[in-house]
Amino acid sequence: MKVLITGAGGFIGSTLVRALLQSGHLGEQRVQKMAIVDHRLPDRPDFVQGIEGDLCDARTQQQIADFAPDVCFHLAALPGGAAEADPAASRRVNLEATLDLFDTLAGRVPGTKPPVLVYASTIAVYGLPLPDPVTPSTPTRPPLVYGAHKLACEILLADYTRRGLLDGRSLRLPGIVARPRAPSGLVSAFMSEVLHAIAAGQSFVCPVGPDASSWWMSALCCAENLMHGAVMDPTCDPEGCTSRAWPLPVIRLSMAKVVQTASQMYGVDGEALVRYAPQPEVEAVFGRYPVLDDARSRLLGLRDDGSPEALVCRALAPFA
Amino acid sequence: MKVLITGAGGFIGSTLVRALLQSGHLGEQRVQKMAIVDHRLPDRPDFVQGIEGDLCDARTQQQIADFAPDVCFHLAALPGGAAEADPAASRRVNLEATLDLFDTLAGRVPGTKPPVLVYASTIAVYGLPLPDPVTPSTPTRPPLVYGAHKLACEILLADYTRRGLLDGRSLRLPGIVARPRAPSGLVSAFMSEVLHAIAAGQSFVCPVGPDASSWWMSALCCAENLMHGAVMDPTCDPEGCTSRAWPLPVIRLSMAKVVQTASQMYGVDGEALVRYAPQPEVEAVFGRYPVLDDARSRLLGLRDDGSPEALVCRALAPFA
Repeated sequence: MKVLITGAGGFIGSTLVRALLQSGHLGEQRVQKMAIVDHRLPDRPDFVQGIEGDLCDARTQQQIADFAPDVCFHLAALPGGAAEADPAASRRVNLEATLDLFDTLAGRVPGTKPPVLVYASTIAVYGLPLPDPVTPSTPTRPPLVYGAHKLACEILLADYTRRGLLDGRSLRLPGIVARPRAPSGLVSAFMSEVLHAIAAGQSFVCPVGPDASSWWMSALCCAENLMHGAVMDPTCDPEGCTSRAWPLPVIRLSMAKVVQTASQMYGVDGEALVRYAPQPEVEAVFGRYPVLDDARSRLLGLRDDGSPEALVCRALAPFA
Repeated sequence: MKVLITGAGGFIGSTLVRALLQSGHLGEQRVQKMAIVDHRLPDRPDFVQGIEGDLCDARTQQQIADFAPDVCFHLAALPGGAAEADPAASRRVNLEATLDLFDTLAGRVPGTKPPVLVYASTIAVYGLPLPDPVTPSTPTRPPLVYGAHKLACEILLADYTRRGLLDGRSLRLPGIVARPRAPSGLVSAFMSEVLHAIAAGQSFVCPVGPDASSWWMSALCCAENLMHGAVMDPTCDPEGCTSRAWPLPVIRLSMAKVVQTASQMYGVDGEALVRYAPQPEVEAVFGRYPVLDDARSRLLGLRDDGSPEALVCRALAPFA
């Protein structure tokens, strides 16, 4: 089985690459060849082919076509904040280069099984304010250009799937923790920063209040879900089988609970370290997540981290 | 007020141009300048500027930018059957040229009112089989590439609207009658052909049975709705105001009722003229339309033809 990962140098991408190398398998099948695509490639074993370049570049697409993966994880994207600041770049990267990738992979030999494409979509396809609970019939009203382009690609991936050209699976990712402590262009970065601060025993000014409830998932859990997404049987969910889009199951936690859990695990006084200075516009987007009805996603075998403790542990030390 | 129409040479476009010229107004406002865009332009008064070209061509987009309309009706599209036969062409025309048009019109002077864009979307954004009734919360599962690209553009038009760059209104058109008796690339063409045949006293082989129920609308009614769509107040429908997409209200009629109505109006023996030879695949798509909950569309002032008689009359002789 030949596996390709776009955006492999990114936060989730590099975690996925590591998890794949560690497992060596996708479901029952052994990963025989692997290729990773990004602007700058991380260190990798000789076994892994590197494709350094931009998906907007026809040469990169040609190298992907030449590799001809059986499974593609498409993670490359311009993130939310950056997309909103430059919608034209979002159109090029998040919409057009993604459709180019679909076309590149769809051009396989007729009669053979279409390649599996696991698409990293986003909970940003839902609107604001979110209804409580969010269910499979919650209308999608993306409040940012990032979510709008992601939703458009979900719809078109379902269409490539219908036409038998790809076997698409769009997974709607929540905010994933813990990102490296560096500018990411993401408003949700505070969810990672609070964990790093507590683990390091440093003070932190939190832009949402203690009661702010959010959806949480570690990068390792996300990587495991992406891997499962490639081998799960979408027909187990006849309704979702048409849209080919599912939210990842999440743990819903208040910020106070996250601070408390991390503080206990790292033996620090979280209440003293964390000062809450809620910003209404951040709280409105990232502090009011309702219950998510993820029963259909769980039916397919997608999973959350299991417990607040496991979340914190796996978020901060995924490969410990 | 400056008004521009893309796809002005087409069936609905030419009806809209005629209706606009006849009225001379959009709501309270007088149409002072008008421009029409298409590959081949119909005859027109000197008052109307012609832009002959392809929306995929940057020169055409520049001419549209120079005209700088206050209201744009975007009707140009590759129709469903043709799009399915050439998805790459559908991507160019139905997705990318449409987004180019959004960008062309969005580049207006900051601080001024954004141009109104009335987008001819389609009921093909819904899935198959349609639930009964179809409501505003019916999930969109486009069963053809045409509907997938239209839905993607709806979502992105709502995003341009959110960003204050356009004032978008997506209207989901049902099959419109009566198209000229020429190949149109549309599977639904039989809905027009049966009317022409009865009016001409000719025999007709109908690909759906007498009980097949469909949504019906005349081109004149469609044009009136498009014109109303430009001046209606979307905030009257707070829910739809985010998605900026509404289905046009429809009359739901069985084929037998349409045949009977047209036969009475044209004084012919419809039962003798029409032979029913249902094709399961046509019947499945165009013969099983459920009830459409169009209350929110009606609230905004959008309308159906009024009666089966008015439908047939307006469909066959719109400007009599």
